[in-house]
Amino acid sequence: MAKKDTSKSALRTQKGVSVSEITNNASIKQLKQKRKTQLKTDALIQQILEGNITALSRAITLVESTNVKHLKDAQTIVKLCLPHANKAIRIGITGVPGVGKSTFIEVFGKHLTSLGKKVAVLAVDPSSSLTKGSILGDKTRMEDLVKDKNAYIRPSASGEALGGVAHKTRETITLCEAAGFDVILIETVGVGQSETAVHSMVDFFLLLKLAGAGDELQGIKRGIIEMADAIIINKADGDNVKKAKLAKLEFNRALHMYPLKDSLWQPKVSICSAIEQKGLTDIWDMICDFEKLTKANGYFQQHRSNQNKFWVLQTIENQLKSDFFNTPKVKIALKKELERIANHETTAFAAASYLLNLK
Amino acid sequence: MAKKDTSKSALRTQKGVSVSEITNNASIKQLKQKRKTQLKTDALIQQILEGNITALSRAITLVESTNVKHLKDAQTIVKLCLPHANKAIRIGITGVPGVGKSTFIEVFGKHLTSLGKKVAVLAVDPSSSLTKGSILGDKTRMEDLVKDKNAYIRPSASGEALGGVAHKTRETITLCEAAGFDVILIETVGVGQSETAVHSMVDFFLLLKLAGAGDELQGIKRGIIEMADAIIINKADGDNVKKAKLAKLEFNRALHMYPLKDSLWQPKVSICSAIEQKGLTDIWDMICDFEKLTKANGYFQQHRSNQNKFWVLQTIENQLKSDFFNTPKVKIALKKELERIANHETTAFAAASYLLNLK
Repeated sequence: MAKKDTSKSALRTQKGVSVSEITNNASIKQLKQKRKTQLKTDALIQQILEGNITALSRAITLVESTNVKHLKDAQTIVKLCLPHANKAIRIGITGVPGVGKSTFIEVFGKHLTSLGKKVAVLAVDPSSSLTKGSILGDKTRMEDLVKDKNAYIRPSASGEALGGVAHKTRETITLCEAAGFDVILIETVGVGQSETAVHSMVDFFLLLKLAGAGDELQGIKRGIIEMADAIIINKADGDNVKKAKLAKLEFNRALHMYPLKDSLWQPKVSICSAIEQKGLTDIWDMICDFEKLTKANGYFQQHRSNQNKFWVLQTIENQLKSDFFNTPKVKIALKKELERIANHETTAFAAASYLLNLK
Repeated sequence: MAKKDTSKSALRTQKGVSVSEITNNASIKQLKQKRKTQLKTDALIQQILEGNITALSRAITLVESTNVKHLKDAQTIVKLCLPHANKAIRIGITGVPGVGKSTFIEVFGKHLTSLGKKVAVLAVDPSSSLTKGSILGDKTRMEDLVKDKNAYIRPSASGEALGGVAHKTRETITLCEAAGFDVILIETVGVGQSETAVHSMVDFFLLLKLAGAGDELQGIKRGIIEMADAIIINKADGDNVKKAKLAKLEFNRALHMYPLKDSLWQPKVSICSAIEQKGLTDIWDMICDFEKLTKANGYFQQHRSNQNKFWVLQTIENQLKSDFFNTPKVKIALKKELERIANHETTAFAAASYLLNLK
């Protein structure tokens, strides 16, 4: 290389600098920069694999960044972490506000670390930008777990679009798994679309409920019960114990009315007191039973593979739709066609065909 | 016009025919043909509006045709029937094979015609091409209803793609309504995707069940129970009466566990013997109650408007996806990317982004 540089200096100009030298200097600088970035990325990945929490947090920040350069680095890091990920069990936790999700996650997380597990807690909450606060934002609600060196709590990724938040959460799971976490708990509120997204990225889906009088399932979005692998009746302490036991019976009956799941897992109902720390062993044992059953019958692996396929297709479909429906011409015409349908001037299919021909 | 033709004849060639004369003759012929088609179409529409069954059948055949010319005529007919449609109540009927759908529809249909209603029976069964027979194909199973002059039975539209079958069924509903039918019964098998499609084109969705021992809801696809506005326990005759009453209790309990529907309608359970013709009045009364409630609270109209919007968007989305995923380049690359994901070489999101850039 040195020899080549010397020969090139024959082209030196009056000002003492050759064109190729400038180019060389620039590309050397670029190369150096690239090398530096790569070294930084390599070092970060190495630290993540060693379980360094600071490195993990930095990588997640890159994943969550909207800066194009950061996103490119993030993609490289996630890609290189992939072969080291995929080993944890991913548990989704949902329930309406007030059901005690944070307290449950804190005591359940502590229970798991006491068993020697490394636990990461994430959240999917696309509405956080509206409610001016993410569901895990108030870390003081989990003050014991926060101090636990085997636990890692990451407040929810911000973002308006659920697709974007889900994307970031999926990549964060990969990073946490590469960092050696055994259990990933993903919290979501039981309203809106987020629990469907979370259901599509976890192995086990857990619905928290309170024991109360009357219609136990009121207030939950339709379809969530069918998604649940377990219903946990929380706050089963003091005067609530009897009510919780009754609710357990009712839910069990309801769950048995459903057709068997593809996993061949019969969803279960458990009661739990997060405050009195009761029922935690049962819940973890149940999840282990689920893992054992579904790994033996092949569902666990198949399900993860289906989830990957789902996210590929889902991401593409969302992009195709967004490209189409955000075209100004289409936006205006769609509104008009819907009015024409309402006035019985056209059918849904004629309108669709007309709109498709606009682009 | 005649004058113009005469002046043009000055350009007459040696052979005695001018170029413009040929053109004129051709366009006159075209015009005549167009006029003839329009007359035929107008006559057909007039006959449909008069309730002529032969004309209705001919129009439905045009809707179901794959011939481009027929489809164009069909579109015109459906469009001109639209202002006269939209007046019937549309009832979806589903249940696993063996539950007695055909017998139920026959006696329920006869019950409705005895009340002075005109009843059309359609079917959505996209799998008919596979099972070598459509669910309503065997008209002998409804031999009484077939002979009833106030009933019209149309076997399922054939077709491999559910989207296409649904499209044809929706347009057939319009034609039947324009022909003055008051009740449209749409039968579908309770497996696969067809009941979701039917649910999206009816006002009231009815699930037929048998009373049996054990888990009553086994064998039905997940989600169907949540769709149902009523569960009818069929074959409640002889020794089955007691079992049916027990099943009614169980289902009622299960239905009450669900959150309230947007329609504010509390789904109901009814028992029925199609053979002994018992319970039919209750079922029709229930549907009338539903119609009254939802027309009063505005849900009925809103729901139909939402269904129209759903079909516009659904048709567009299906076309966008089909255009994208049927590109040979994408097909090959998708397969490869899914393999790369399985080998932990790429993420779902990186794969999606790569595939989107292919087109």
